[in-house]
Parts: sequence; C-alpha cells; structure tokens
Amino acid sequence: MQIFYCKDVSGDRAVFSREESAHCLRVLRMRRGDTLTFTDGKGHLYDGVIDTDDPKGMAVTVTSVNSDPCPRNYMLHVGISPLKNDDRLEWFIEKAVETGIDVITPVICSRSEKKRIRRERLEGIIISAMKQSGRCILPKLEEPESPEEFLRRPAKGKRVIATCDSSFNRTAITEAFDRGDDVTILIGPEGDFTSREVETAISAGYTPVHIGAGRLRTETAGIAACCSVYLANI
Amino acid sequence: MQIFYCKDVSGDRAVFSREESAHCLRVLRMRRGDTLTFTDGKGHLYDGVIDTDDPKGMAVTVTSVNSDPCPRNYMLHVGISPLKNDDRLEWFIEKAVETGIDVITPVICSRSEKKRIRRERLEGIIISAMKQSGRCILPKLEEPESPEEFLRRPAKGKRVIATCDSSFNRTAITEAFDRGDDVTILIGPEGDFTSREVETAISAGYTPVHIGAGRLRTETAGIAACCSVYLANI
Repeated sequence: MQIFYCKDVSGDRAVFSREESAHCLRVLRMRRGDTLTFTDGKGHLYDGVIDTDDPKGMAVTVTSVNSDPCPRNYMLHVGISPLKNDDRLEWFIEKAVETGIDVITPVICSRSEKKRIRRERLEGIIISAMKQSGRCILPKLEEPESPEEFLRRPAKGKRVIATCDSSFNRTAITEAFDRGDDVTILIGPEGDFTSREVETAISAGYTPVHIGAGRLRTETAGIAACCSVYLANI
Repeated sequence: MQIFYCKDVSGDRAVFSREESAHCLRVLRMRRGDTLTFTDGKGHLYDGVIDTDDPKGMAVTVTSVNSDPCPRNYMLHVGISPLKNDDRLEWFIEKAVETGIDVITPVICSRSEKKRIRRERLEGIIISAMKQSGRCILPKLEEPESPEEFLRRPAKGKRVIATCDSSFNRTAITEAFDRGDDVTILIGPEGDFTSREVETAISAGYTPVHIGAGRLRTETAGIAACCSVYLANI
C-alpha cells in the first residue's frame, strides 16, 4: 500500500505540499475523485479523496482516520556524528527511519571531519523512508550541536554512548536497555570519541557500551544500534 | 590498523595480487623493507615485511602469525534475492561482512526483478569490507540459484525464512536461534516470497520468521537479520 505525506491536515481537509501534489498528479497521474492513503507524520493515517487536483497544492477530503499500523511504545533518539562521505549518513538515516526512530541529532565531535549536514536532502530521505516503511511518525532531524550541548539535555530512559575504547568498562549494547525502554544513543565519528568526550558522557549519566568485537563503520554502528532497539521490541 | 589481503600464503612467503600490490606500492607508496599486516581470508592474520616490491606481484616474508581478532563461534549463511537497484545489494553485502557472515547466496525467487549479480564488483566490496572491519575470514559469494536449489542443501543449525505474510505462523527472528547457533536465513525480494516458496521452505525445515511490524526494504531486512545474529553473539 502506497502512503503519501501531508503535514497540513485540519479537520477533514488536507492540503498537500507542492512536491507531493506534483508527485501524485504529474508522476502518478492521479486525478480528482481518486482515493489515497496518507499520514500527517504525527501518528495518524488517513484515507481521503482528491477534491482539488491543483499540482501546486492538491486538496483532499479525509474520509477516515486509522490508527498507526506500526505503533511503538518506546522513543529512540540517536545523536550521531556527520560522516566524511554524505552517502553513508544518508544510508544510516534511511535505515534508522525504517527500523523506527524519533529524533536524529547530528553531533559534531572533536574528531568529526564533517561539521555540516545537507538538511534538505536528509529531510527528503526521512519523508520518503517514512512513507516507504509505512510509518506514521515523521522523525525529527535536529540542528547539529556539540557533544556538550547534547549531553546537557535532560533525557528520560536509558542513555548510552558507543565507543571502541576498551579501557572504559563497557557493557554490550544489548544489555543496556530492555523492551519498552526509551533510549538515547550517541554514536561517534570515524576515529571514535575522544576519551574526554566519553568521560563527559559518563559524568552526564551515559553508560558506555560496545557493539561487538567487529570494527564497524560509523553508519554501521548506528544501524546496528538502531537494530538493537528495534529487535528488542519486535 | 590497516589490514591487507593476500590469499596466496605458503609457508613464510606471501605473494600479493596485482591489485593489492599496486595499492600498497603505488597508492600507499610502500616499499621494500616496509612492514604490514595482512590476512589470508582463512582466519589468519600475519605480520610481514615486503621483500620484493613488484607492483604486479609484491612478495612479503611472514614474520609472525596472529590469531583472528574477531573470532566467531557460529556460522551465518544468508540467501537473499538480488535487488532492482544494485547499490542496495552492495550495501547489504558491505554491512553483512562488517557484522560477520560466512556465505552469501543470491537466490532468484519468483518475484525477483533482477536475475543476475555483478560478481566482480561484489567480490571487491567483500574484500574491502573484510579488510576495513578487521575480519580475517573472507565470506564466500556463491553463484545465484533458485529457492529450490537453496532449500535442497543440507544445512546444519537453525534455518529461517523471513516473510511479511502474516498468514504464516511466524516467530520473531530474535526467538528463532540462540547465541552460538549456526544460522541460515532466507530473505526474499521486493514484494516478498510467494506463499508457495514459503511453504516449500517450511517443508524443507525452515522456520518462518518476522522482523518486526516495520515494512523493511529487502536490504534492510537483510541487515536487520544479520544484526539479530551479530547482536545475539556480542
């Protein structure tokens, strides 16, 4: 089942973005009177019928409101360093959305080689992965911040920092939370966090964890971490 | 630590492939007398010193043999349909190698849109992911085969087939095996296996499993399945 995205739903009327309108009307050749299923990215799944086939702002009348087909009873927030190769962060983000995530924060660490993200592109990937995976919650992509800023936030649930540095007393990531727990995970750059960054995280209440003996790339560590939360909840 | 690959090790002498020789000598500007660490892809990690700096076939004298830094006490074999988009199979393969896999078999199912693989390119990705992740076992990429051929093989350990079809009595993939178990996993194409394919697999001794409520792309299902085995063993 194809799911569309429309953030602008008010009562029984939904007005689609220019991009999504053009996709429906020009690419998919939908027209007035056609029915479709869409989400507002806030947990709702709607059925509706196109009543104005304007490719700059298609309007749809909601005919029914359905519950989220993939409800989750936990929150997942991942802070991850941008990567030298933009593709690799994009892949992480697509896979994180498919397996279920709420918030992604780019965290610029001492050893992060890249200090910026391509926001517009990443937001497009998030929307498209949400639609493709049949999810109804649009994950939030935050502005890049420093580890200090990230660590300073109050976070409920379990908080872990993944590091390859075996001089820290690390637990396996699979032991650091239980089914249903809200989880915040920090994943460092190529070259890992500095010891000082790990120590600061520990002082802020984070548990140092490892993700196995394999030497995983940053995006693989991120995907494996998201999978550890996803798989604990299936 | 950078790890190189040389499959041709005999006694204390290793002769590198043309490609790896050129990489060491031309790209990295290594020369006679330099030391390096390399694996034969069969579980051994060697230290050695370059004694012949021929870019068509660099020869190295082994100075020590070390044990595999990421030993595994289980085998993982994944049969997966090729994907419409070659990139996506390549990503699956890279991530599967990083998280630990022994055999990858492309399985051409009824609904597989692509019937072939780019073997040379995939083998390059496997070697490079093995070296990058510090692993010493080179996973084997088999020739594409039909589901019938795949299912006909004797397989030890746990055997599971992942399907989205909830009319089968599926268990969660995380419940289908334990730490240390050898595992064979079958992952279908975009559009899933046919019911008949799942039934044939069940008759052959496979357990139908689900990988959560999310609608995962084929390569994401493959990565999540590999992660479920990897994470059960960390």
